[in-house]
Amino acid sequence: MQKAVPKYHPVATSAAAETIKKHEKPANTVLWAGWFCPFTQRSWVVLEELGIPYQYKEVNPYLKEASFLEISPKGLTPGLQVDGKPLHDSIIINEFLNEEYGSSKLLPEDPYQRTIARLWIDYINKEVVPAFFRLLQAQPNEPEKQSSALIEFKNLLSTISKKAKGLYFFGDQFSLVDAALAPWAVRDFIVRDFRRFVREDVQGWSDWAAALETRESVVRTTSSEMIEFNGTFLRNELHSLAGRAAAEGQAIP
Amino acid sequence: MQKAVPKYHPVATSAAAETIKKHEKPANTVLWAGWFCPFTQRSWVVLEELGIPYQYKEVNPYLKEASFLEISPKGLTPGLQVDGKPLHDSIIINEFLNEEYGSSKLLPEDPYQRTIARLWIDYINKEVVPAFFRLLQAQPNEPEKQSSALIEFKNLLSTISKKAKGLYFFGDQFSLVDAALAPWAVRDFIVRDFRRFVREDVQGWSDWAAALETRESVVRTTSSEMIEFNGTFLRNELHSLAGRAAAEGQAIP
Repeated sequence: MQKAVPKYHPVATSAAAETIKKHEKPANTVLWAGWFCPFTQRSWVVLEELGIPYQYKEVNPYLKEASFLEISPKGLTPGLQVDGKPLHDSIIINEFLNEEYGSSKLLPEDPYQRTIARLWIDYINKEVVPAFFRLLQAQPNEPEKQSSALIEFKNLLSTISKKAKGLYFFGDQFSLVDAALAPWAVRDFIVRDFRRFVREDVQGWSDWAAALETRESVVRTTSSEMIEFNGTFLRNELHSLAGRAAAEGQAIP
Repeated sequence: MQKAVPKYHPVATSAAAETIKKHEKPANTVLWAGWFCPFTQRSWVVLEELGIPYQYKEVNPYLKEASFLEISPKGLTPGLQVDGKPLHDSIIINEFLNEEYGSSKLLPEDPYQRTIARLWIDYINKEVVPAFFRLLQAQPNEPEKQSSALIEFKNLLSTISKKAKGLYFFGDQFSLVDAALAPWAVRDFIVRDFRRFVREDVQGWSDWAAALETRESVVRTTSSEMIEFNGTFLRNELHSLAGRAAAEGQAIP
């Protein structure tokens, strides 16, 4: 039986394409990436932030190829190879990159504040991201669902945005909290264009999102052709584990 | 409207009761605990492992009292106060305790191995624990559901048990992986007695579970009267967020 694989623009475009070109050569650190995947972008941003030498390796996570399942057991991007050894999960990869190559500079030095960062990253994962997908998936013929999904997304985003201390979550210092959320700052134009989301309706989000989407590491990992891919969510086609989980009200795997 | 709160034995018993008695006095670190709660036990074990001075504070997480919601936003145990400042989530609390008071000795020194630990802790959270609850909740009048839930739980437990390198997950050294799973070693007698689970059917689990349940920190945080509480799960009464999430196939919040 052939797998249902969504059609999408096959390669990164614009700034992201340029970045990929610079990272084609083999390196000890390999990012197994879906150019369109927000979870991939979290780790890609951290690689760029920390100036880590890496090879970019495009993978289609929908195909669940055996070679990739050895890196990431559920076939979800991103995967990371370090001297040949596999890791997966964007948040756990980011902790690794920050500890191993970043002298932990993307988390606060104070252990309590570092823990606060982890709690808010967990909040992004368990609350904000599923709400974003549910909003995308609420169909035009379901106006009440769209409306309640919009309110929910705004409320959840508002809760964390109010906690942001300045330009970034911890003030001037870009952190793993920002890396965890930045891919959705880059993508919120989709819910603006198709789901009546307005940045300015969420106190604190407009400024924070602008800071995130113009951050060099974020710009360098962003493609211009994102809408085609997100169309599969907008039409609620549920090709992905993330999409199905969100539709069922579950945590993203 | 009065909340539906399950009846359970109100206080810890046996060794856990003794431990609580030793930790009644105010301290800078306060564990907000449900004596019966496996998630609480994860952090309680780490406090005991690291010999951290702490105050034990019993809380009924079903009541969702305002004072506790200030510590843990969903009213889930455990919560932790450090010099008055709140933290929640057993896994994130354990990372904090280990970093702040344990010189990180409950995780491997090597950053790659430390990351492997985090991946398996995530696996315990997202796979093993929900499967345990689903097995508890599969009712006697649903023999097929019971049978498939049993197979699923055994398979998931087998996957991680095969990775254990010795007495504990990383060999001789007790780690946060062991702390994350130990409360279910202590509780697997319930699925043995009521759901036909047999430790020896899962390669590696029998030895590992025996090592976990006899570890001093685990013994000191275990009550003898656990079956009454777990009865609410066995009858699938779904009082808790964890119980409802598991029943719906969702990740535990």
